[in-house]
Amino acid sequence: MNRKSKKQIIVEEAAVLFNEMGYSATSMNDIARKLGVKAPSLYNHIKSKQEILSILLLSIANKFYKGIQEVTSTEDSYRFKLKEIIKMHIRVATENQHITALITHDWKHLEEPSLSKFVKIRLDYRKKLKEVILGGMKAGELKTANIEITLNAILSSLRWIYNSEIYADTSNVSLDELEKTLLDIVFSGVDENY
Amino acid sequence: MNRKSKKQIIVEEAAVLFNEMGYSATSMNDIARKLGVKAPSLYNHIKSKQEILSILLLSIANKFYKGIQEVTSTEDSYRFKLKEIIKMHIRVATENQHITALITHDWKHLEEPSLSKFVKIRLDYRKKLKEVILGGMKAGELKTANIEITLNAILSSLRWIYNSEIYADTSNVSLDELEKTLLDIVFSGVDENY
Repeated sequence: MNRKSKKQIIVEEAAVLFNEMGYSATSMNDIARKLGVKAPSLYNHIKSKQEILSILLLSIANKFYKGIQEVTSTEDSYRFKLKEIIKMHIRVATENQHITALITHDWKHLEEPSLSKFVKIRLDYRKKLKEVILGGMKAGELKTANIEITLNAILSSLRWIYNSEIYADTSNVSLDELEKTLLDIVFSGVDENY
Repeated sequence: MNRKSKKQIIVEEAAVLFNEMGYSATSMNDIARKLGVKAPSLYNHIKSKQEILSILLLSIANKFYKGIQEVTSTEDSYRFKLKEIIKMHIRVATENQHITALITHDWKHLEEPSLSKFVKIRLDYRKKLKEVILGGMKAGELKTANIEITLNAILSSLRWIYNSEIYADTSNVSLDELEKTLLDIVFSGVDENY
């Protein structure tokens, strides 16, 4: 096992602990114990708990951002782009659940310069999504409504996937069904009349 | 100022700090400093940081639960009940934003017996909402789809309101517009064709 993959293992196990115990309550000793190694040996790979948090959050933020960049660089309709963004968002979140969970809360523990970097990627993601929704409203593809509420409702409706306890209730559902059901709800709502 | 209202002031100021700094990182000293008093005087009103968290989370959970109980005890249609539940949920969340924010994450820091009490009220709330959605699906008022996904998507689509930073973008929006826009999105989606 080379140094790089060991680092990857450390940060992924740390993500599980951050979720279970919270970032503040997790120590490097806890992480070492979970990995079955002595704490000092961790420091051959990782400088600090803060470095772990920074690696986790910047990597997941970049994954989401790369995903939305790919979708929005096409010439498709806004409706199609919004669907593809939601599918990408669901896929990245389910594939990286323990890391994605940190986005809701633990990013607040980031220190500079990682904090500013993270906040910027997150804002850029919102901006790109906002452009798609606004474009869709102007083109008559999406209903015209308050943009911030619409943006927040869409993003937020996907956020339960980040929570492994809530997500557990749907563990028998395939990724296809999850995508299809959520797209239906976001695009056409829950009312039988619509 | 009597003892009871002083206690209320303490827990409300603590809620603001828990949001800003996280529960683990907030000390009784921080709370005292924010209130402009000495830490020992806090202990005349409150036993511990844990007691504050317990008061905050059990009171907000009970507010939500009382709200859903009132709505579901009527003889209205499932569609109407779901609309009333969403409106109640938005109202309770906006009126108690700093406290509601703790529901997403900080409930994990509760100790027994408060933890079990909180989890039970939360589960009971989900159960009541689930019954309304399932009833609506069976009665042909709501679209038939995976119940857990539908339940989570609806609850989650409202959860950004708990986050004062995200909510700040919609601070110019009236409660009426917020309710109307969110009900439209949940019931009929964002697509212009529906």
